Amino acid sequence: MAIKLNRLNRKDYYQAIYKSIQDNRRDDFRDLFLKLHEKDQVAVFHKLYPEKKNKIVDLLQASEFAELFEHLDYKGRRQAIEDLPADYMTEVFTYVADDEVTAFIHELPQADRQHVLESMRPSDRETIETILEHDFETAGAIMTTEVLTVYAQDSADQVITGIRQAASAVETIYYVYVVDEARHLLGVLSLRELLRAPGDCPVQDIMNSQLVQADIGMDQEEVARIIKEYDLLALPVVDGQGKLVGIVTVDDVMDVMDIETTEDFHRFAGISGSPDNESDRESIFETVKNRLPWIIILIFLGLVSANLINMFEATLSRVVILAVFMPIIMDSAGNVGTQSLAVSVRRLTLGDNTESFWVLVWKELISGIIIGLAAGITICGVAYFLFGNPVLSFIIGISLAATLSVSTVIGYLVPTLFSKIHIDPAVASGPFITTITDATGLLIYFSLATYLMHLL
Amino acid sequence: MAIKLNRLNRKDYYQAIYKSIQDNRRDDFRDLFLKLHEKDQVAVFHKLYPEKKNKIVDLLQASEFAELFEHLDYKGRRQAIEDLPADYMTEVFTYVADDEVTAFIHELPQADRQHVLESMRPSDRETIETILEHDFETAGAIMTTEVLTVYAQDSADQVITGIRQAASAVETIYYVYVVDEARHLLGVLSLRELLRAPGDCPVQDIMNSQLVQADIGMDQEEVARIIKEYDLLALPVVDGQGKLVGIVTVDDVMDVMDIETTEDFHRFAGISGSPDNESDRESIFETVKNRLPWIIILIFLGLVSANLINMFEATLSRVVILAVFMPIIMDSAGNVGTQSLAVSVRRLTLGDNTESFWVLVWKELISGIIIGLAAGITICGVAYFLFGNPVLSFIIGISLAATLSVSTVIGYLVPTLFSKIHIDPAVASGPFITTITDATGLLIYFSLATYLMHLL
Repeated sequence: MAIKLNRLNRKDYYQAIYKSIQDNRRDDFRDLFLKLHEKDQVAVFHKLYPEKKNKIVDLLQASEFAELFEHLDYKGRRQAIEDLPADYMTEVFTYVADDEVTAFIHELPQADRQHVLESMRPSDRETIETILEHDFETAGAIMTTEVLTVYAQDSADQVITGIRQAASAVETIYYVYVVDEARHLLGVLSLRELLRAPGDCPVQDIMNSQLVQADIGMDQEEVARIIKEYDLLALPVVDGQGKLVGIVTVDDVMDVMDIETTEDFHRFAGISGSPDNESDRESIFETVKNRLPWIIILIFLGLVSANLINMFEATLSRVVILAVFMPIIMDSAGNVGTQSLAVSVRRLTLGDNTESFWVLVWKELISGIIIGLAAGITICGVAYFLFGNPVLSFIIGISLAATLSVSTVIGYLVPTLFSKIHIDPAVASGPFITTITDATGLLIYFSLATYLMHLL
Repeated sequence: MAIKLNRLNRKDYYQAIYKSIQDNRRDDFRDLFLKLHEKDQVAVFHKLYPEKKNKIVDLLQASEFAELFEHLDYKGRRQAIEDLPADYMTEVFTYVADDEVTAFIHELPQADRQHVLESMRPSDRETIETILEHDFETAGAIMTTEVLTVYAQDSADQVITGIRQAASAVETIYYVYVVDEARHLLGVLSLRELLRAPGDCPVQDIMNSQLVQADIGMDQEEVARIIKEYDLLALPVVDGQGKLVGIVTVDDVMDVMDIETTEDFHRFAGISGSPDNESDRESIFETVKNRLPWIIILIFLGLVSANLINMFEATLSRVVILAVFMPIIMDSAGNVGTQSLAVSVRRLTLGDNTESFWVLVWKELISGIIIGLAAGITICGVAYFLFGNPVLSFIIGISLAATLSVSTVIGYLVPTLFSKIHIDPAVASGPFITTITDATGLLIYFSLATYLMHLL
């Protein structure tokens, strides 16, 4: 009967592991520890005191610790390098997947990179240095070079035997890539298809030659999109000559998706700079560096609104009460602008093209008019209730209705227009749109008020 | 030599397929068509005229069309049901993965659901109806019930033989689940481990009994998180008795991640309602329904700011020029609030707990003060340049500095506080925060102006 790991006995289970280390019962430790998923192994490892961590060297083979290492975060990895003997770590690095090693080195301060690279075997170092040459956030930078390749003439049985031997050295055994002598990618074969085929069947008869592949310089977001759309577990990466250089696996792509989402979120809120992996907490300096420029730019953009009010100073000084409703006009305009902006940016990110652009703009306009009318009637009623001035209430109501109708369309149009003229639509952040819609709202409001001034 | 599919010859390749349909060359069609990835098969299928689509029945077996069907979007699926003969579709449904069928039925208008269910074989219908009973967006609702199960005593070779036979009927062959006679989940075994093990080894000796699993009612976002953190290709789903009822696969989870991200994005911008799958474009009515309530609520919240200005009417009527800088104070406050809100909400979503809450608040405060000082000095200079009034410039500068410092912390604190008292932090949307920071900014600005009025 198998031990079932649930909330109740997880603590006891971990306790048994710690006890086995204390008592130097190596076999018991390995029995208990290796049954855990690497993520849980990490949890156990983290709780060991530094002097106990050193014992890991005797308890785990380098290949076993390599799997745990892959699940450590940046801090944990740095710690491991400091705590464990250098020759043990050198061996560990030969087993850690390339993409994990490169990701780790990417995050290291420049000064420490050389040090870690020098601690690796020359052959490992060479591979990593090649990957490090690729542009940040491209297929080449997130791929692993540990791939199963076979020749077109190999039989299904030969390949299966090969897989059985290589199973621990490669990142995924679920796809096998068919190449010629020069490593040109000819086809791909899933383990599923392989198992279904007769044993003596040459792989060229069962392989899929309609390749879905990534160029080495392809943006990681595009890589993620392909893997998602084709429901792949891994995507082969080729160089300019169509030679197989590596694969990107689905688990890496999920991390990419998280990072890209955070990036989109931050841009949407007007924060520049790309967020790092979970590790490397942002310093106050970086926070300021990523946020301040936008705030300053937007202050200068905000001078447009300031200038508008200054133009209407005569109106305002005669009817100071007009200022009371400025926040509501501005906020509401910004709010509907942000709403349609979010819809628009997200649609562009997902590459959703099922409806024509102008149909969508038309829909936004109609929605904006309806929302504007509802909000206008509301504020008209509230204003009348508060100040009992029908003309003022009317001005505010009409202004709000018109402002919201226009702002909805602005929020929708701007990112699309940006993307049409090849500016990243995410530049059209919420704060940016708000600044535009504010000016629009104030212009409508004060123009109408000035025009109807004689009635006030 | 294999045909390589790239941009250049894809068109020719598709042309060859259309030609083979026209000439009724079934074997040629199958040869060309089945080599394509299902996603590309869909592209070809979409371009067929309705009368040609009907030919598919003769050209493809139901099991082959089922794979294509899984890659169709909602519209394409509805179309297929209308265009193709009912008995062909009945057979197709027995091959389509459960989770895809349920997702499709979920999106159908209530009236059509029964009709589609009735077109299915009774045994298929029963399975689907069971899945449909689970709550929307839970593990139970997105799982598939087609799973490979084996007994603990089976040998590795027996299991591999079983996999070879079942390969086309199940969603993934890369994990095998070990159960007892009552289907209690005992362990999991990856195909990788299976292939590495000696052929006569009973699976209980190699299986992983430290189970990572999902309860049937677990939220789909949590399911996605587990799959991502443990780098799994599939996660087993169990009922209240620990019996295996299905699995959720990584490709479904990637779709879930997209939908959840869109949901977060919309909420962040103050849009309620959950976005549907790619299909089913939102109607104008739904757009208004999802956006208007927030706008109206925020108008009433905005009355706080309106009221504040009203309170300071005496100050404002004496120095109307103060109104000129209201937009900049309000916008900047909203902008820094939105920035730290985005960071905070995203951190909560990712469940990132590496730094203590108060350390993070402290960091935000310091960042806010620095950003505030920089922005304050800037606007002070600009105001002096524009109006040449040192006291006014000073008031604006100090107000902006103070407002931004406070707003940064507000944007960061509110979602965290919400989540501590178990309110969804996403309720703290950008528009909501903006409304709060506006009031704060205006209060500081006019208080200071009133206090220093005698100097103006």
